[in-house]
Amino acid sequence: MALRRVRATARAGFEEATARWRRRPRPGNALNDRDLTRLRERIEACLDPRLSGVAIRNRAGEVADVVVALDRTGLDAFFTLLLESFGPRLDAVQRALDDTADVLAPIRGDRADPAGAMAAVAALREACAPRWEQLFELLCGLTGGVKLAVDLRAELLALLREHPELAPLDRDLQQVLSRLFPPGLLELRRITWNSPGSLLEKLIDYEAVHEITSWEDLKNRLDDHDRRCYAFIHPGMPDEPLIFVEVALLDAIAGDVVRLLDVSAPSGIGHEATTAIFYSISACQPGLAGVNLGDVLIKEVVADLTRDLPRLNQFATLSPLPGFRRWLDAELAKPDTTVLSAEDLETIAELTPDGATGPAALSALLAGGLTDTGPQHKALRELLIGLCVDYLLGDEPGRSRDRVANFHLTNGAQVERLNWMANATPAGLRESYGLMVNYRYDLSKIDAHHEQYVAHGHIARSSSIARIATARRKARAARAENH
Amino acid sequence: MALRRVRATARAGFEEATARWRRRPRPGNALNDRDLTRLRERIEACLDPRLSGVAIRNRAGEVADVVVALDRTGLDAFFTLLLESFGPRLDAVQRALDDTADVLAPIRGDRADPAGAMAAVAALREACAPRWEQLFELLCGLTGGVKLAVDLRAELLALLREHPELAPLDRDLQQVLSRLFPPGLLELRRITWNSPGSLLEKLIDYEAVHEITSWEDLKNRLDDHDRRCYAFIHPGMPDEPLIFVEVALLDAIAGDVVRLLDVSAPSGIGHEATTAIFYSISACQPGLAGVNLGDVLIKEVVADLTRDLPRLNQFATLSPLPGFRRWLDAELAKPDTTVLSAEDLETIAELTPDGATGPAALSALLAGGLTDTGPQHKALRELLIGLCVDYLLGDEPGRSRDRVANFHLTNGAQVERLNWMANATPAGLRESYGLMVNYRYDLSKIDAHHEQYVAHGHIARSSSIARIATARRKARAARAENH
Amino acid sequence: MALRRVRATARAGFEEATARWRRRPRPGNALNDRDLTRLRERIEACLDPRLSGVAIRNRAGEVADVVVALDRTGLDAFFTLLLESFGPRLDAVQRALDDTADVLAPIRGDRADPAGAMAAVAALREACAPRWEQLFELLCGLTGGVKLAVDLRAELLALLREHPELAPLDRDLQQVLSRLFPPGLLELRRITWNSPGSLLEKLIDYEAVHEITSWEDLKNRLDDHDRRCYAFIHPGMPDEPLIFVEVALLDAIAGDVVRLLDVSAPSGIGHEATTAIFYSISACQPGLAGVNLGDVLIKEVVADLTRDLPRLNQFATLSPLPGFRRWLDAELAKPDTTVLSAEDLETIAELTPDGATGPAALSALLAGGLTDTGPQHKALRELLIGLCVDYLLGDEPGRSRDRVANFHLTNGAQVERLNWMANATPAGLRESYGLMVNYRYDLSKIDAHHEQYVAHGHIARSSSIARIATARRKARAARAENH
Amino acid sequence: MALRRVRATARAGFEEATARWRRRPRPGNALNDRDLTRLRERIEACLDPRLSGVAIRNRAGEVADVVVALDRTGLDAFFTLLLESFGPRLDAVQRALDDTADVLAPIRGDRADPAGAMAAVAALREACAPRWEQLFELLCGLTGGVKLAVDLRAELLALLREHPELAPLDRDLQQVLSRLFPPGLLELRRITWNSPGSLLEKLIDYEAVHEITSWEDLKNRLDDHDRRCYAFIHPGMPDEPLIFVEVALLDAIAGDVVRLLDVSAPSGIGHEATTAIFYSISACQPGLAGVNLGDVLIKEVVADLTRDLPRLNQFATLSPLPGFRRWLDAELAKPDTTVLSAEDLETIAELTPDGATGPAALSALLAGGLTDTGPQHKALRELLIGLCVDYLLGDEPGRSRDRVANFHLTNGAQVERLNWMANATPAGLRESYGLMVNYRYDLSKIDAHHEQYVAHGHIARSSSIARIATARRKARAARAENH
Repeated sequence: MALRRVRATARAGFEEATARWRRRPRPGNALNDRDLTRLRERIEACLDPRLSGVAIRNRAGEVADVVVALDRTGLDAFFTLLLESFGPRLDAVQRALDDTADVLAPIRGDRADPAGAMAAVAALREACAPRWEQLFELLCGLTGGVKLAVDLRAELLALLREHPELAPLDRDLQQVLSRLFPPGLLELRRITWNSPGSLLEKLIDYEAVHEITSWEDLKNRLDDHDRRCYAFIHPGMPDEPLIFVEVALLDAIAGDVVRLLDVSAPSGIGHEATTAIFYSISACQPGLAGVNLGDVLIKEVVADLTRDLPRLNQFATLSPLPGFRRWLDAELAKPDTTVLSAEDLETIAELTPDGATGPAALSALLAGGLTDTGPQHKALRELLIGLCVDYLLGDEPGRSRDRVANFHLTNGAQVERLNWMANATPAGLRESYGLMVNYRYDLSKIDAHHEQYVAHGHIARSSSIARIATARRKARAARAENH
Repeated sequence: MALRRVRATARAGFEEATARWRRRPRPGNALNDRDLTRLRERIEACLDPRLSGVAIRNRAGEVADVVVALDRTGLDAFFTLLLESFGPRLDAVQRALDDTADVLAPIRGDRADPAGAMAAVAALREACAPRWEQLFELLCGLTGGVKLAVDLRAELLALLREHPELAPLDRDLQQVLSRLFPPGLLELRRITWNSPGSLLEKLIDYEAVHEITSWEDLKNRLDDHDRRCYAFIHPGMPDEPLIFVEVALLDAIAGDVVRLLDVSAPSGIGHEATTAIFYSISACQPGLAGVNLGDVLIKEVVADLTRDLPRLNQFATLSPLPGFRRWLDAELAKPDTTVLSAEDLETIAELTPDGATGPAALSALLAGGLTDTGPQHKALRELLIGLCVDYLLGDEPGRSRDRVANFHLTNGAQVERLNWMANATPAGLRESYGLMVNYRYDLSKIDAHHEQYVAHGHIARSSSIARIATARRKARAARAENH
Repeated sequence: MALRRVRATARAGFEEATARWRRRPRPGNALNDRDLTRLRERIEACLDPRLSGVAIRNRAGEVADVVVALDRTGLDAFFTLLLESFGPRLDAVQRALDDTADVLAPIRGDRADPAGAMAAVAALREACAPRWEQLFELLCGLTGGVKLAVDLRAELLALLREHPELAPLDRDLQQVLSRLFPPGLLELRRITWNSPGSLLEKLIDYEAVHEITSWEDLKNRLDDHDRRCYAFIHPGMPDEPLIFVEVALLDAIAGDVVRLLDVSAPSGIGHEATTAIFYSISACQPGLAGVNLGDVLIKEVVADLTRDLPRLNQFATLSPLPGFRRWLDAELAKPDTTVLSAEDLETIAELTPDGATGPAALSALLAGGLTDTGPQHKALRELLIGLCVDYLLGDEPGRSRDRVANFHLTNGAQVERLNWMANATPAGLRESYGLMVNYRYDLSKIDAHHEQYVAHGHIARSSSIARIATARRKARAARAENH
Repeated sequence: MALRRVRATARAGFEEATARWRRRPRPGNALNDRDLTRLRERIEACLDPRLSGVAIRNRAGEVADVVVALDRTGLDAFFTLLLESFGPRLDAVQRALDDTADVLAPIRGDRADPAGAMAAVAALREACAPRWEQLFELLCGLTGGVKLAVDLRAELLALLREHPELAPLDRDLQQVLSRLFPPGLLELRRITWNSPGSLLEKLIDYEAVHEITSWEDLKNRLDDHDRRCYAFIHPGMPDEPLIFVEVALLDAIAGDVVRLLDVSAPSGIGHEATTAIFYSISACQPGLAGVNLGDVLIKEVVADLTRDLPRLNQFATLSPLPGFRRWLDAELAKPDTTVLSAEDLETIAELTPDGATGPAALSALLAGGLTDTGPQHKALRELLIGLCVDYLLGDEPGRSRDRVANFHLTNGAQVERLNWMANATPAGLRESYGLMVNYRYDLSKIDAHHEQYVAHGHIARSSSIARIATARRKARAARAENH
């Protein structure tokens, strides 16, 4: 009868253990020379090739005990120690090159002995392995070590700015982490208002796109009726979301994020929804930069939503345009920008009280503030949307200028629609003159779009976006000819 | 309110998906030439360096769809295809060697540019990577792919006997799997009579040491009162035990496995127990051969038992001696064996009706059957135990002849006691003349024992075993001198 | 971080506690005079009206400690003690009658003071309450006490056969239990091969209709592909099924239980199923006799199946006819039975080699064994099915003679079809000459059928059964007129 | 493989269903005459004695559908309908009295036929049962009906203030609920920061003693290191706490609640704690008034804490004195109050600048505000504590004046210590001049204290409180004699 207690004990041991190496830097805890010497010995003890199993783990635990409490200066010393003393053993590389010279010869020659060549290549490869990689693997293999490694990489990335020479460590640590985060190991977890308080608190902390301002705001975003929230969880750090996405269930593609997040708005249509809007995707672990989780998350969420809500038939984002204004302002600052067509210049003249035209006039106009009304409103809206199409599609074929666009296009989405005054908050105006964009995931075309984009640089787009792009290209071409 | 349904849906999707690539070989499903060509194309599509994320996963899924249903002949063709077409790109290796010749020079010389050397080594290493490794990683990264990879390796190991040339694939597949099975990712799960029927059924299937003959036998082994059973579970294959250990709770070190497993015996002392006997450890996944899980399992089980039953202070195994009889019979077949001392020969003469002595006489005696009674019983028992000590400790320093001994000694245990007639079943007599051995885990010495053994070949032993070993060594030395 | 352990501790305490008062009768543990005196005192201590809460619970626990270990003789003494010493306090009833005479007068008279009358009635009611009821409630309120009370009632029911005077205790204990088993408190749990071994073992023990012969048989019945099994669980005895139903998923209403249970038969159509056959319903707790759980179970299972398998549109049982042969044999033993029509007699004459007719001839014929072949087979089949219709529908309006029929008819099912040779096992032939019946649950008519049956004694039937019944009624009426 | 989904479906059905009859009053939804007539018919349909099982449940569901949406005026009409039309059937009572007159005679006489008398009493009892009780039981038996019944009783209690004639309904509804809330059915759940957000939100709503001002305050109260929080959960309303207690782990009995709740205070001694302080107990369901859960909660929490933290050896509350100031002010308003002894009067004279004495002087003094310093502080502190001892212990033997004291004394606690300035907030000063009290639970004496208190009115106290009480009693007696 005591089952649950004992089984839980085993599991609870795991829970507690995963917290053992949670980073707790002690300010001022750098490494003095004696500490460094001892740490070097401990690392050597870890990497003793004669030992194995539990013995090695115990030694790795001793290293972790030190590292967990280091402040940034201490970590700098730790990483430098690794770089200088625990890289590839160059003498072994040398030996491998010497030993295998004969066998490698066929590579250059007739390949008479492919098996021998293969063995030689394998030996050479092994000799080239840096020893720090093995330490990283040992740390990851500790119970709770995955989180430690992720946090160490976050620190390493921060240090890299000042210490670019640490890059080799980062490349290998990212590699080690990538191998431990294959999508098949991740749990897709639905987050609701019934999820643990400790997890909910982390959503508030990690939300990177549209800040969660209160627990009430959070509750609204988790409202089972017309919202969904999903996260990926890794079994080695079960209390931590890796990345999460917030979804609104609607009856059409949304174009206004402020209305979407309004806590006081009446609840939406819920289970009758036809459209799922992914309005926020936040990565939670800086130490996993470069480990791509977002595209699998979107795919699995679409699958789960489809199973759960059979009427859903449209999936799209409502996304920011983080670099639009910066790009446009820079473009307009060039007197001879090619981004404006003859028609654009006419529009600008019409919009300006004194008939001034040219990029500077548009700059002045935009700096004066945008409104959603007035007779000129429509003309300005179309001009700005057109310029934003230029921004997004850029000089195709190639990658989009916009990093969010690049993310969704790589995932196989298409540019669907641009939305005027979609984020009319000060932040939204500052970033993109209030514009937001929908990227659409058409399940039957994701794969083709992905390949077109990553292999050929073709950007998928809706017919309306295509129409704008074509018109603007022609207009610009006409103007260029006229010049 | 629908929380549990939806969350479970997400999770259930995972459960179902993990079953998707469970091996289901269709007899006769080898690969014909057209299949092979198509499979090669699919693998190439997987490894297209321009693609990423979901697109790659979809392509890897298509490869898995083929592989999952291949029979052994088909797998042979698949692995041969990998070996021949998806190894390291030798031209890239060549290029790396050429390109980096200059930078590698310092390795041989003054190391003036360590960063450059390091970069060159890293580039060389990358060029040496076989492409099949990437495929293995992609398969492991599918939901349910870990089990597929484990099962593929089991098949590969079986094929290796006839096709040793596939060894490079095996080495890399083992490597890929090892990296996905760090101890910190495993769940230690207590197995009880309340565990799922599907899991219990697998224990019956996998028990490798002492066969579980019925569900009643199993229930007896899971009796919460005086038994424990623990398994490691990997998050990527949550329905499968990786390895499990069966423990009896007693008040002294047990020496008789038949009594231990007797279903009709009254229940033991339970929570008052002072001694935990690990009487069976079974690895469940042949595809994980070489991935060491046993030592961490024993360590974590000891920790959990200690937490749960504070009176426990002794941990030992009751283990078979799988090679003892084979070794002894071979030894006795040599007329000039050095394993018998002068005293041994006297004992043999006394035990034999007609006073015959020498190895052949002992062979005849042993072949005649052993009993637990009779006046000569004690002399024979001591002789056989002495010979078994010789067998286990062998020509120290070095590794033990016995593979089970080698496992526990590597884990840091010591040879504690030999037990006469401990397994008097026909199988037990056939294997080890009925002898069994206890290996003892003394928590305060595990680390030291491990290091002494793996680094120096010293075998830890109890004082009584040490006494026997010393006496026999002296006696043999004396006889050798007399010769 | 220790959350799970501590929370589980609290819960595990519950699990352990529910086992505390699991019946463990010690043979020979009757109650001697001293024991009885002490037990009486303990019960009095429980019922002390001044005490409350934990104090009362502790005292009730002391009573439970005694009762849990009593053998049947001891229980007899315990129940007799309750009957004789802990019934309604007759003096209090007397007092209530005296005290309230005046206030009760209005009941007989003009009802001028309804509030006063109501208060008087309430006081009278309270005085009439037997004290044993309060003890039963206290026992049920112990952690684990629900199972104790259920088990005590099972014993009481067994004792009742010899001690009918204990009936008042039984009536009140059933009442107390009924109030604790409202359907809304029960958990509908799907049982699968992944359910706990301890629960699966109980299914094997409790299956009352078609014995489960092995774990393999059980596994076949839980095959997720084309089987379902559901149980009700009560939160106060969470390890015990109360009642369970086994369901087969098919594409038509099944008529042969042997084929249905064949372990070696290929798997059925699974998720494409249109028809769910409830082929076994087993109540697990004899102590809950009279507490109706079956009808709610069927209703909730139908609801869950419908949600899970949207193609399902037919729900029926495949049920035994436990009293059919006994009834028919008895009927045929009467020379002047009215159950046979003139046409029946003709059929019998044709079936009998020597042309003998009449009930005795049919008896002889049936006793000779039935086969599924032969020219006469069809005639006999129709005769027997017709007689079985008579058996089931009886002398409508009224309740069916068959207890299983009565259960399903009360639940709102209709008699759908009779199946010849549906259970051709020796047991099936012995019980019902191999016949089985389908009762059909038509969701849109359940309520109407229930009311028609329980209020008016009308038995719902399919059109084919109705046709047989009408034909036989007319034939019998014709014969009766002819007489 | 689809296990978890399907099983969860069944369970999720339950979760959703429990929400079906969550009260959603529609403002203005009273009952007009036609509604009332239809509701009466529905209730009659429920109580049709011929129907059973699912049919009855469906009808009860129809009644619930109406009731769930009624506003308070509608509920008033509903309850009045029950009172007037669904009470005990007086004619049946009459008939039972008539029918059983003869058999009841022996009650008054020689009791020659105890079985007959018992049967007559049982019949009489049954006739006296009001029909509304059966309706209440049916509502409770719906899935989710328990919460509906609890909420209806909360409304009924509110209505009672204006409609005391509804009391008979309340008595029976409380009775029905009490029977469904035996302690053995409740789950003791540890609440932590990992508990569901929806549950945590309810703690904030329900906390009745020391308001939880923010999520951060709540997190602090759930800090695993030195806090504990437990709730009782009923299986029929699994999302709702019934009652919860907040515990602080300390190394001595705490006397200052403000410091205890200070979010910014450093964490306490945690697992080394010797003392558990129950500083807040909040009942969450007004509809369960009179159903005692607190004492079992305290007992089970003490048991769980002891298991979890073996060093704990002291359990006490830190409790408010809700009526102290009101009582004292009233007492001092009487010029001839007997609560002050001659010594008290002297103390007052010394404390007052102008040497005024008597109750009015003390009133003035207290109204002037209390401080924790000054030379007179100690004298005033002792006087006030003495008066509070008078307040708590009152005119023993008997019940304490203080309702919180009465709760803990009934549970078997003792008055341990009074704490000056323990709650120096405006609310604390307003209620009890800042005083708080510790009640101590001495596990070995709980039962004896309970019995002494409830049966004899003796109030258990620590030796220091006893000393104060004795001194004050003597001093008052002396003054009385002097008069």
